[in-house]
Amino acid sequence: MLLIKVGGGANINLEGVARDVAGLDDQILIVHGANALRDELAARLGVEKQELTSVSGYTSVYSDEPLIDVMLMAYSGLRNKRFVELLHQNGVNAVGLSGLDGALVRGMRNKGIRVREGGKTLIKRDLSGKPVAVNRKLLGWLLANGLTPVVTSPIIDERNVAINSENDDIVSLLALALRPTWVIQLIEAPGLLEDPDDPASVVSLVPPQQLARWEDRVGGRMKRKLNAIAKLTQVRGMKVLIADGRTEKPISDAMAGKGTVIG
Amino acid sequence: MLLIKVGGGANINLEGVARDVAGLDDQILIVHGANALRDELAARLGVEKQELTSVSGYTSVYSDEPLIDVMLMAYSGLRNKRFVELLHQNGVNAVGLSGLDGALVRGMRNKGIRVREGGKTLIKRDLSGKPVAVNRKLLGWLLANGLTPVVTSPIIDERNVAINSENDDIVSLLALALRPTWVIQLIEAPGLLEDPDDPASVVSLVPPQQLARWEDRVGGRMKRKLNAIAKLTQVRGMKVLIADGRTEKPISDAMAGKGTVIG
Repeated sequence: MLLIKVGGGANINLEGVARDVAGLDDQILIVHGANALRDELAARLGVEKQELTSVSGYTSVYSDEPLIDVMLMAYSGLRNKRFVELLHQNGVNAVGLSGLDGALVRGMRNKGIRVREGGKTLIKRDLSGKPVAVNRKLLGWLLANGLTPVVTSPIIDERNVAINSENDDIVSLLALALRPTWVIQLIEAPGLLEDPDDPASVVSLVPPQQLARWEDRVGGRMKRKLNAIAKLTQVRGMKVLIADGRTEKPISDAMAGKGTVIG
Repeated sequence: MLLIKVGGGANINLEGVARDVAGLDDQILIVHGANALRDELAARLGVEKQELTSVSGYTSVYSDEPLIDVMLMAYSGLRNKRFVELLHQNGVNAVGLSGLDGALVRGMRNKGIRVREGGKTLIKRDLSGKPVAVNRKLLGWLLANGLTPVVTSPIIDERNVAINSENDDIVSLLALALRPTWVIQLIEAPGLLEDPDDPASVVSLVPPQQLARWEDRVGGRMKRKLNAIAKLTQVRGMKVLIADGRTEKPISDAMAGKGTVIG
């Protein structure tokens, strides 16, 4: 089984991913983002997006109800269903699901994010949380019956409220629950870069003991991604890759050794 | 088994529907619309909506790609997922699906709609079609495993393209495939009305042989609904109702005999 995370950037080659998925014989579970589409839609609708940076240095989007509405339209609606359509056009019987559907991804709402504002530490509470459990029975039936689940945010919290969650955390939780052989993170870069401004500086291997150092070194979304991936380095026989989602054959390229191997 | 169609009007009491669904012991399949939400979103996004009236007198929305995008956001995204969330909050393990997911509802694209424009009859072809097949295996597994499918447009055509389709046609196709005991159409009126301006003039029973006459008499969406329902009147043991979706307990009220019985 392969678990493919398709980043939500505007330059990810979804057609290439869909063709690659069609060409693989294995069971495939897809998780995708849609952050570029969400930002575009929020701007068109005049919904303000606020970013928070926690005291520990992780950035996230402040998720209030209007932003969750935008996510439901951009992630669960437009991106999810157009991707499902594209997969069908390539011969893949895809089923799009949000974390809400069948409580596919259950989360615990964050108590609050500690942020620094005007020299003070404040606690900001929004509609976000960490994924804690997945509906393995539903995913298992879909995979066993030749269907390809295409999963995206939001997820459902302990009080059955739709909340935002990092897709990378969802990927790691799904990987721990379903034990795929491959976990492939497709992003808008050739992999983890030694020098963020030099696409040729791909780090081909990051051993687990170096992950913490890399987390300190990189910023923004990559910091969070590495933090989520760190949970997977203990699992025997699981190949974890970060690779370029913009190439002609993103998954084949990743499996052929381009990109960064974690572990 | 009950098949509930929840109309897409702005005044449907979704909370009441969710509570009613939670209180019923039977398997339940839900199909919902979102036309009011679609129109609101299209207006906010500046997407123009054009209505067509065929020479045979049926009205429909001209569905081009931007309109399908809006549908994916309004129907499959925001309305579907917020309704799924609401059902979970009432203790119902709902799974939201569009017709694309697992090719749940397969359609045949319309060759074109004959319309009169400027004294001429023209053929207008858009992204719309008739539903012709459903994924019974997927729906059957969900229903048998305590999950409540919540289905909505768009559907997927013979070339795997997302197309618009009348939800009432989807309902009738699902009813013929799954043979529910009850098919309940919840709308923004107390039922079929003798006088459209008098809510007290509910017709309590429409025998099958009177349906054609009623189709000629009513206009707009109701004409189309009756046409879709007509296919069900042949099925033995299936109770088909049109009832008020705005009451405190829309499904219970319908089953208690309020509204219009067809058949």
